[in-house]
Amino acid sequence: MSLEILSTQKSFGGWHKRVRHHSQALACDMVFAVYLPPQAEQPGARLPVLYWLSGLTCTDENFMQKAGAQRVAAELGLIIVAPDTSPRGAEVPGDPDGAWDFGHGAGFYLNATQAPWSRHYRMHDYVVEELPALIEANLPASDRRGISGHSMGGHGALVCALRNPGRYRSVSAFAPITNPMQCPWGEKAFSRYLGDERTQWREWDACALIAQAAERLPLLVDQGEADGFLAEQLKPEALQAAATAAGHPLTLRLQPGYDHSYYFIASFIEDHLRHHARALAG
Amino acid sequence: MSLEILSTQKSFGGWHKRVRHHSQALACDMVFAVYLPPQAEQPGARLPVLYWLSGLTCTDENFMQKAGAQRVAAELGLIIVAPDTSPRGAEVPGDPDGAWDFGHGAGFYLNATQAPWSRHYRMHDYVVEELPALIEANLPASDRRGISGHSMGGHGALVCALRNPGRYRSVSAFAPITNPMQCPWGEKAFSRYLGDERTQWREWDACALIAQAAERLPLLVDQGEADGFLAEQLKPEALQAAATAAGHPLTLRLQPGYDHSYYFIASFIEDHLRHHARALAG
Repeated sequence: MSLEILSTQKSFGGWHKRVRHHSQALACDMVFAVYLPPQAEQPGARLPVLYWLSGLTCTDENFMQKAGAQRVAAELGLIIVAPDTSPRGAEVPGDPDGAWDFGHGAGFYLNATQAPWSRHYRMHDYVVEELPALIEANLPASDRRGISGHSMGGHGALVCALRNPGRYRSVSAFAPITNPMQCPWGEKAFSRYLGDERTQWREWDACALIAQAAERLPLLVDQGEADGFLAEQLKPEALQAAATAAGHPLTLRLQPGYDHSYYFIASFIEDHLRHHARALAG
Repeated sequence: MSLEILSTQKSFGGWHKRVRHHSQALACDMVFAVYLPPQAEQPGARLPVLYWLSGLTCTDENFMQKAGAQRVAAELGLIIVAPDTSPRGAEVPGDPDGAWDFGHGAGFYLNATQAPWSRHYRMHDYVVEELPALIEANLPASDRRGISGHSMGGHGALVCALRNPGRYRSVSAFAPITNPMQCPWGEKAFSRYLGDERTQWREWDACALIAQAAERLPLLVDQGEADGFLAEQLKPEALQAAATAAGHPLTLRLQPGYDHSYYFIASFIEDHLRHHARALAG
């Protein structure tokens, strides 16, 4: 597996790198970003890793440029890995209508079952299996993993953790799509990637998965109350109801005045990084 | 003077706003960004203001999205104002060759004297006079002012402070163009905005101005040693020599490994904000 370093920039005493590699899961070339804190340069270092999943239209760059996470990651000795949000490239089919909420930039962190999407759109396997194997083989990274994300990526973080007991030690989300089976973004994506049989959709819906979760990893979720997508797409009350019904530990914080942007994420990222670092310690 | 609020986003308990207004100095409509910390909502608040001048190609948005300044500004009770980097609009002539280092996004914070630039390119008067008057009349802002900036904006911050004794209580810069008379970016811009008579250029060159400065405001300057523009465009050694010759207090910090990007700025912005807040207190 060859990794091509596209750029290296010093940040808070550590290094931000963009890396290109060929993904077998996605059958295309991919770029991810990684932040290596200063502790990564210590001999024999094996640091915990937080995987950050971004939202619709994002790439590996948005979080690294806008969240202000490096300062705290450098303090905590946390590696952060930010993958892209879908398979990419001319060979990867996108939305037939050129929309921004499906296809390129909108992989929804699932494994598609329907042609023509099923060949490339396997972001779940990429994020959960292939990328961590790559990181842990090539960087000073341990197998202590946390996962977080925003919006579509918040959905991704919840679903990756709920589907894979034992794989993550911590999970959190910002303004996640909690119940994609019941919102326009999710219905559009699932009906194409997964087909019309809604029983298949339950395997990729946090509210459905939480009922039967084999592991009760505590969830930390922040949601802005001035988020324009709150009522129609995000539905934190559905997650709250599902967690309560299942007895799943959930800390849902509704933040007055905050919207869906990275200004919101930056305001609370430190709390999330400390939540992950506590669980990932040792 | 009417202000049009284009957007309002909560950030670290305060508010990030983008504002459009008509500039008399520039004879065009302009957009600036302002961060109002939580303290701005206290009755009768009159907070100090840091003016941030961005570099080539930037707008009001780059600093607010990427520098991670709001966290510290919210702690310190500091308003931050980020203007655009040039006059804008179809009526404003840009670079005849469409280059990115002159014209739109490249106003160099001076008052142009040559046609056709002299009608609109008066960023010095906009930044030093018109914008503070607007801010202090319409926002909970005092006349305690600091100024900072990056690259072309670092040049702007140094020159605005050196030309206007008593107007600022603090000044700093990241990777400033210190000696524009002697570098390609500056020579291109000055020869067009100011004409071929180089004696006129000295009024807009920090290294020249520092010799005769009427006020010895301490300068804090950070410069990345891995900055690709260091030797040809930025020349921190020229500023060091000019400050030493003039007896001007300069703290020049060369930061090993850092480049010219906002990853560099974000790593050290807290030091700069605290430098300004100390001088602006009370």
